[in-house]
Amino acid sequence: MSHTIMDKFFQPKSLALIGATSSPGFGYGIPLFWKKYGWLERAYLVNAKGGELHGRKVYRSIADLPEGVDLAVVIVPATSVRGVLVELGQKGIQAVIIESAGFAEIGPEGKKRQDDLLEISREFGIRLLGPNCVGTINTENQFATVEIMDRAMEPGSVAIMAQSGVFGNILLDHLPEVGVKISKVATMGNKMDLDEADFLDYFVADAKTRVILIYEEGVREGRRFLEALRRACRRKPVVILKSGRTPFGTQATLSHTGSLSGEDRLYDAAFRQAGAIRASSLSEMIEVTRVLSTQPSMKGKKVGILTTSGSLGALAADAIYDESLEIVPWSRGTVETIQEAAPNWVNVKNPLDIGPSGIFPIAMEAIFSDPNPDGFILIPVIPYAAIEVALRLGADERTFFGNWPALRPKIGSKPAIAVLLGGAKWVERVKNLCGETIATVSTPEAAAKALSALYRLSRPF
Amino acid sequence: MSHTIMDKFFQPKSLALIGATSSPGFGYGIPLFWKKYGWLERAYLVNAKGGELHGRKVYRSIADLPEGVDLAVVIVPATSVRGVLVELGQKGIQAVIIESAGFAEIGPEGKKRQDDLLEISREFGIRLLGPNCVGTINTENQFATVEIMDRAMEPGSVAIMAQSGVFGNILLDHLPEVGVKISKVATMGNKMDLDEADFLDYFVADAKTRVILIYEEGVREGRRFLEALRRACRRKPVVILKSGRTPFGTQATLSHTGSLSGEDRLYDAAFRQAGAIRASSLSEMIEVTRVLSTQPSMKGKKVGILTTSGSLGALAADAIYDESLEIVPWSRGTVETIQEAAPNWVNVKNPLDIGPSGIFPIAMEAIFSDPNPDGFILIPVIPYAAIEVALRLGADERTFFGNWPALRPKIGSKPAIAVLLGGAKWVERVKNLCGETIATVSTPEAAAKALSALYRLSRPF
Repeated sequence: MSHTIMDKFFQPKSLALIGATSSPGFGYGIPLFWKKYGWLERAYLVNAKGGELHGRKVYRSIADLPEGVDLAVVIVPATSVRGVLVELGQKGIQAVIIESAGFAEIGPEGKKRQDDLLEISREFGIRLLGPNCVGTINTENQFATVEIMDRAMEPGSVAIMAQSGVFGNILLDHLPEVGVKISKVATMGNKMDLDEADFLDYFVADAKTRVILIYEEGVREGRRFLEALRRACRRKPVVILKSGRTPFGTQATLSHTGSLSGEDRLYDAAFRQAGAIRASSLSEMIEVTRVLSTQPSMKGKKVGILTTSGSLGALAADAIYDESLEIVPWSRGTVETIQEAAPNWVNVKNPLDIGPSGIFPIAMEAIFSDPNPDGFILIPVIPYAAIEVALRLGADERTFFGNWPALRPKIGSKPAIAVLLGGAKWVERVKNLCGETIATVSTPEAAAKALSALYRLSRPF
Repeated sequence: MSHTIMDKFFQPKSLALIGATSSPGFGYGIPLFWKKYGWLERAYLVNAKGGELHGRKVYRSIADLPEGVDLAVVIVPATSVRGVLVELGQKGIQAVIIESAGFAEIGPEGKKRQDDLLEISREFGIRLLGPNCVGTINTENQFATVEIMDRAMEPGSVAIMAQSGVFGNILLDHLPEVGVKISKVATMGNKMDLDEADFLDYFVADAKTRVILIYEEGVREGRRFLEALRRACRRKPVVILKSGRTPFGTQATLSHTGSLSGEDRLYDAAFRQAGAIRASSLSEMIEVTRVLSTQPSMKGKKVGILTTSGSLGALAADAIYDESLEIVPWSRGTVETIQEAAPNWVNVKNPLDIGPSGIFPIAMEAIFSDPNPDGFILIPVIPYAAIEVALRLGADERTFFGNWPALRPKIGSKPAIAVLLGGAKWVERVKNLCGETIATVSTPEAAAKALSALYRLSRPF
């Protein structure tokens, strides 16, 4: 597969929409979305009725299109797709996204329709994405073959591959809300032609992508996928959420996309061997991905914890144990620095619980200068009552916790994760303190899981 | 223990604050908070300097107070607490909250100070909460011995017991943000006198409390606690989050509150035997508590799932399996009703994935009328693109999903949980559709865990 053909799916020089329409629906909304992001002038709209849409001419047939269109997006009813594909082939269009549903996922009749398409695409040398998908997104050039929220279009570093249109789309809506920003997306639907292996290779080569996230129901060509996964994991972290882990889930995926999700233990072993990070739940996938998208890998297992809450420190210590990481003793210098600054009730251990002593900035600088830990968990929680008191005194989040952007360089390429809990307004202020260089999660368990993933990333496969 | 003495901690007729002060801090903030919620006029402020605070006279000594004060809140430095307690005893005050830190949690010296207090309290017949805590909260009468956010003061049905002041406080800030509303709170600190057993009995008897939530580091009197827990679990769901599960966590709790968190497996078995629900993480505790606070128990193991996303349906099915619940076939009537309404590509199974067919209201009414399931998971997700199209057509969340408040009565005392994901604004609208009678969570896994907890609640112990 040449690089050029894949590029056509993410940065087409020109494109066509087969099924543009003036009635509300995707055929109306997609070109409107293209207009908003400056793509409509490169787009040819097609509908047998002709006319005009969003100020742009509508062509009556594919045959009327100019030569050399890079990409066609097809949203006509399932029964009309075959004819459209033949015309696209005759026109010499090589990259086609079929968004229409009604193929292998609905049973034998649809499967036959799908097999037909594959035959035609082979005949004309067309590469196909779909059917039963919503195509691609590229936040770098703000191109998408589906309407998404403006917020989801903000450029980020996480590339996403999802089998399903609805779920892939929901992820696009949801991830930016929880702080995960996207680089590129491929929704693969029934994967009749292009599949995970193709996009894995493409995303690994993509300079904007730092983390690859896959939602998987069932793999079509296991060997090809695992080889691509192995190659990918050597270069970039790959997080996989796979449903069909259990007999119930397997049954459900079967009727969903016609996938055979297979024996879960085999997948689990294969993912692990390839070096991928398997998330056990949607929430874990989100929190781990968010950390991976900003933090460097962790070179060893030794974690340092600084907390204002002994309880959350203890929960973090439990979680560190669960993840087979280690709690490291502080160096003598760190202990001395903190003992000098702290009231006598502060017990200088790891987790370092400084309670309401107010020495967070000093303690953070001390542990960030300590060579012992390979990574850090910060738990800067403050009860509302104390915030109220401090605000009366003119304090803010920096008074409490220090200048994090200035402290971050001290730990160089070690990861740091902050666990943020409490009132939303205050949490938002502490999030700003974290900026882009200290990751945030909402529970101690998520912090430990993310560090464990960062540790695994540093190990040779 | 008489009911009367416990009431003094949550609904005192009059109270005293020992350590009121005009400098910023709790001694200034707590009476200000009392003023805001109408408690200051029932409060006597004490400080050797005398004068006035927030328009209220400050008494120079405890001896000067009128007779019959119900509750005293002490926030003087640790070394002064002994003298204060003797004076309170001499004055005949029987309920005392000691918020000051600097006792058993800091080592032998503090432990000795604490033992002294216990002796004095026994001598005078005082019941003590603390030390090293922030006392109590009662949202019913808007009484609190700690400043909390207005939002945390909104009356709810979850009673909380937390050992730690900071973490207890953080929970108070955090829980209302994530939809858990509070009835009463006891932060117990070092638990030198009143402990879990006392508050369990009190919260079980409390008409405003539906669910009891305990954050536990280490139990002082195991047998007494377990007996109270067993009694409580027969009447109300009790969710426990306990740190010190692992060797690392045990070590951390030891240096935190001086608790011996003990062998975790023993706790685990004991909690289970008593009928409590043990949360494995903070996030699980929050999501499960939120569901328990509004949903009835589930009488059997059979779950029905309605989803617009096959992928999320499959993840829910996996999670149902993990929780040892069951996916039940729909009754013939349900299958027929849905087949009649649905396009032919909808596969009428459980999970029922209706995709973008638009038949959610019909499907929900059908499965809510089905006698087979004991509880329901609804996954009403819609991609932004589809929402955009619908809004153009004048549709809203009811057009998509139906009139949930009207449908809810059909399932009577069966639980229903909605999994909400996507853009924040749209999710907020769907949350309104759920109202107070359909619980919301953010992942399929949380929904399954909550149903499992609701199922366990219905079983005889």
